[in-house]
Amino acid sequence: MAVASTVPLTSREDLSLAYTPGVARVCEAIAENPDLAAEYTWTGNAVAVVTDGSAVLGLGNIGPRAAMPVMEGKAVLFKQFGGVDAVPICLDTQDTEEIIRVVTALAPSFGGINLEDISAPRCFEIERRLDAALPIPVFHDDQHGTAIVTLAALRNAATLLGRDLGDLRVVVSGAGAAGVAVTKMLIAGGVRAGNVVVCDSKGILHRDRGGLGGAKTELAGLTNGGMVTGGIENALDGADVLIGVSGGTIDESAVARMARNSIVFALANPTPEVHPDIASRHAAVVATGRSDFPNQINNVLAFPGVFRGAMQVRARTVTDAMKVAAADAIAGVVSSSLTADAIVPSPLDPRVAPAVAAAVAAAAQQPV
Amino acid sequence: MAVASTVPLTSREDLSLAYTPGVARVCEAIAENPDLAAEYTWTGNAVAVVTDGSAVLGLGNIGPRAAMPVMEGKAVLFKQFGGVDAVPICLDTQDTEEIIRVVTALAPSFGGINLEDISAPRCFEIERRLDAALPIPVFHDDQHGTAIVTLAALRNAATLLGRDLGDLRVVVSGAGAAGVAVTKMLIAGGVRAGNVVVCDSKGILHRDRGGLGGAKTELAGLTNGGMVTGGIENALDGADVLIGVSGGTIDESAVARMARNSIVFALANPTPEVHPDIASRHAAVVATGRSDFPNQINNVLAFPGVFRGAMQVRARTVTDAMKVAAADAIAGVVSSSLTADAIVPSPLDPRVAPAVAAAVAAAAQQPV
Repeated sequence: MAVASTVPLTSREDLSLAYTPGVARVCEAIAENPDLAAEYTWTGNAVAVVTDGSAVLGLGNIGPRAAMPVMEGKAVLFKQFGGVDAVPICLDTQDTEEIIRVVTALAPSFGGINLEDISAPRCFEIERRLDAALPIPVFHDDQHGTAIVTLAALRNAATLLGRDLGDLRVVVSGAGAAGVAVTKMLIAGGVRAGNVVVCDSKGILHRDRGGLGGAKTELAGLTNGGMVTGGIENALDGADVLIGVSGGTIDESAVARMARNSIVFALANPTPEVHPDIASRHAAVVATGRSDFPNQINNVLAFPGVFRGAMQVRARTVTDAMKVAAADAIAGVVSSSLTADAIVPSPLDPRVAPAVAAAVAAAAQQPV
Repeated sequence: MAVASTVPLTSREDLSLAYTPGVARVCEAIAENPDLAAEYTWTGNAVAVVTDGSAVLGLGNIGPRAAMPVMEGKAVLFKQFGGVDAVPICLDTQDTEEIIRVVTALAPSFGGINLEDISAPRCFEIERRLDAALPIPVFHDDQHGTAIVTLAALRNAATLLGRDLGDLRVVVSGAGAAGVAVTKMLIAGGVRAGNVVVCDSKGILHRDRGGLGGAKTELAGLTNGGMVTGGIENALDGADVLIGVSGGTIDESAVARMARNSIVFALANPTPEVHPDIASRHAAVVATGRSDFPNQINNVLAFPGVFRGAMQVRARTVTDAMKVAAADAIAGVVSSSLTADAIVPSPLDPRVAPAVAAAVAAAAQQPV
């Protein structure tokens, strides 16, 4: 990526406008009314893509320098699809307090903060505290980007199969950053909390299971109304939907226990929890995170439009209503031409980001 | 300013190269050899323009949001003249330790740190400690940019008047960030330390004057071999050069006491310490910081080329030798066509930054 000037700089007049002495007038105006910064400088359209390099793709804790190619690629996607100017910021610290301090100090330079590839459970606290402290949207894409696109895909899959979200029995395999956010998003989008069962590597989350951490305790209290216990194979018995965000593998025998006309989203990258060819033997609709199979659940469908829409109306946060609106907009782009192999738009579909931005901006302006 | 993509992103193949899964290979290569980051990502050509908004132009402590237009303008100049990708970073803290922590944490994201408009004396410690801690160039432009261009201008003024730098008696009015750096740079460039007299608002610095701070104590020990005391009018008595970097005013009667064929650089902006029309009655060569008079001492002649050259050869710091080389390169661009009204190139002269970059890169590679 590169930086580009949006004004000409070829004459002494250009120089005296873009820099001294002309720039002093702009500074004074902002000093008087800080809200003008978003309008008079690039900050109103600029997002920091912030990572500590602790959970990069499937590569894990590779540190800030090795994380830079992902952040730079992401910044390019922000521009290409959302017209958003994004700056990759890779931090040389993995300390929760230090990350919060650094991002807080940086905040006047940007109109939004996209947290990226920060490992759980630190990511939950970092996002929560930054979102509370800063007057600009803070959005952990590994959580909410995945969750928004998953909800969009599930909406269209349910429509295709003539099902209502409120009736589906859903199993989420994985209780990390993505698992927590997907579960909450599906509930915000219409799935009944009691109808969701979440599994981590040790089995099903339920209220009586001891030794859970903060986010998992919350999920255990929220979900699993039937108090199902045991492993993923017990959870899948008769379930309508499997959403894999774990990185583990799930046996075909377990998938075979699902209900008729089931839905399987095996989102681990590069190796899905169930290979889509195997999943297809049992499920009516199959999606993955990969570009070489149909129905790619790709965050790029969400984040450029979410930030574009939120920053356009100077939203101070990204609410659940805005995320659900984003999911509905993504689903809506292909809703008139649904097939089992096309429940989400292509990541390159240029209609998506503008639709998402408009929906998010509208939702941000709705009275709560 | 805006961010731009340097690669096409129109097909699934583009997407899988710039982002997942292709990007994982690049991450792994950098994880194995962190030095590759500068080559494989934009960081090798990216500079953070960092301020805390404490000393912005002549406006003073206007804070980070109101400082953004200056930093954004500077980033555009970096690109236009040096081809350097610069990102404005305005920090929501003015605490020395916090600034050092934040910039240290950011460092993996950039190939250089340009400190800007940070007030003295904090700027000295912030720069010194960051430069020692980080493996990339750290350069406080208010100090060294001004100092480099001043040395370039003085070289050409001396040549024009047939004088040798080692023989000149120089008065520096102002002992803030710019005054300290200008004094050290002139000495590194050939002016004899004992021949320099520095004044602050209370008068001449000398070894026996009590109550001086760290940087001023150092200057007092270094300069003023003749132990001159008193005010600026005593300092100027018989002096060859006056360099004003104070923001105060200097009476014509004091300037009138200078030697014949003197040189006056009145660099305060927007109001020079001596109006150039008045200075011209007494001095043979006059320069200011303003674009509406001849001989504008403008930092843009230095910083784009300094960073370009230093980053090109992956220099870990900007040494005095590199700064002197930059000054010589700036002076060299107009040395064959010197007149009293053209001792420095125009800020828009496209020959300057490449010449500075080449000289700085060469100096960085010289054995010390």
